Amino acid sequence: MTGTQTTAPPLSAEEFKSAFRHHPGGVALITAMGENGPVALTATSLASVSAEPPLLVFSVAVMSSSSPTLRIAETVVVHLLDAQTLHLAKLGSTSGIDRFADRSIWTTLETGEPVFPEARWLRTRVENRIDAGTATLIVGQPVQSNLMSAAGVRDDADGLVYVNRTWHRIGEHSRMC
Amino acid sequence: MTGTQTTAPPLSAEEFKSAFRHHPGGVALITAMGENGPVALTATSLASVSAEPPLLVFSVAVMSSSSPTLRIAETVVVHLLDAQTLHLAKLGSTSGIDRFADRSIWTTLETGEPVFPEARWLRTRVENRIDAGTATLIVGQPVQSNLMSAAGVRDDADGLVYVNRTWHRIGEHSRMC
Repeated sequence: MTGTQTTAPPLSAEEFKSAFRHHPGGVALITAMGENGPVALTATSLASVSAEPPLLVFSVAVMSSSSPTLRIAETVVVHLLDAQTLHLAKLGSTSGIDRFADRSIWTTLETGEPVFPEARWLRTRVENRIDAGTATLIVGQPVQSNLMSAAGVRDDADGLVYVNRTWHRIGEHSRMC
Repeated sequence: MTGTQTTAPPLSAEEFKSAFRHHPGGVALITAMGENGPVALTATSLASVSAEPPLLVFSVAVMSSSSPTLRIAETVVVHLLDAQTLHLAKLGSTSGIDRFADRSIWTTLETGEPVFPEARWLRTRVENRIDAGTATLIVGQPVQSNLMSAAGVRDDADGLVYVNRTWHRIGEHSRMC
């Protein structure tokens, strides 16, 4: 709270990463259309920020192969993944593969963005970008979704969580009193 | 991607809230010392942003009782909660109570911030505040923690997740292949 504390050195990267490795996160697949084609990235940083107006936030590491496209995209598609769509989480987190090789599992919206229709998704207009260390925070406003369509309503699917380099299924079996 | 799409209206607050109600989140307790005493808030928006330099982000709703203090605090303490510290998650998410009534479970750091020592915690210097709708995004740099102390190393504790208004325990029983 005083001037002397504001000069304290930060935690080491190792200590910081160790702390967050054990902090669970929901899983999202973020897609966008770039000049060189579609990109996809699995993110555990997605959070709701505000409901009215609706705003969400996620972060993109500069090192990520999708970063050059996601950092300048005007719109992205945020897929909210569950245990049934774990394969999409793995797709977006595996390096060195063509994440759009299987043409049967994705399509293109009228507005141009790539979408994986078996997941719940939110087409999102980027409202703000904030550089933070080696990442960019992206704040966006959802403008379209498949939540109201029959395929989009998946309230009964088990949840998906990533923690300590492991995928976990959330449902009745994990519920606490 | 064109001008016409950028004028699309946002999702309704109801549809947006329904989407995120089913998106699981890890759980953190954020504390700070204000002019009128300590404040505490349970948040599911906490995410790691960058490791070098270490930066984290979380959001605070303007409506929250802790918001006036958290929005101007120069330092906060981010507690990373697990299944063993569920009671702290409940403490920070229950309205109308004195969250610091039980003097036996919290203390004050030399630097003035309130801390619940049974949880893993990161004393964090606020680096940036970004207004977003009815909330404020707070970006901070951890400068001190109890992770390296005996009590702080809790790698074996089950994880804690909040989804669909329910607390969940993450561990071997929830692990997917």
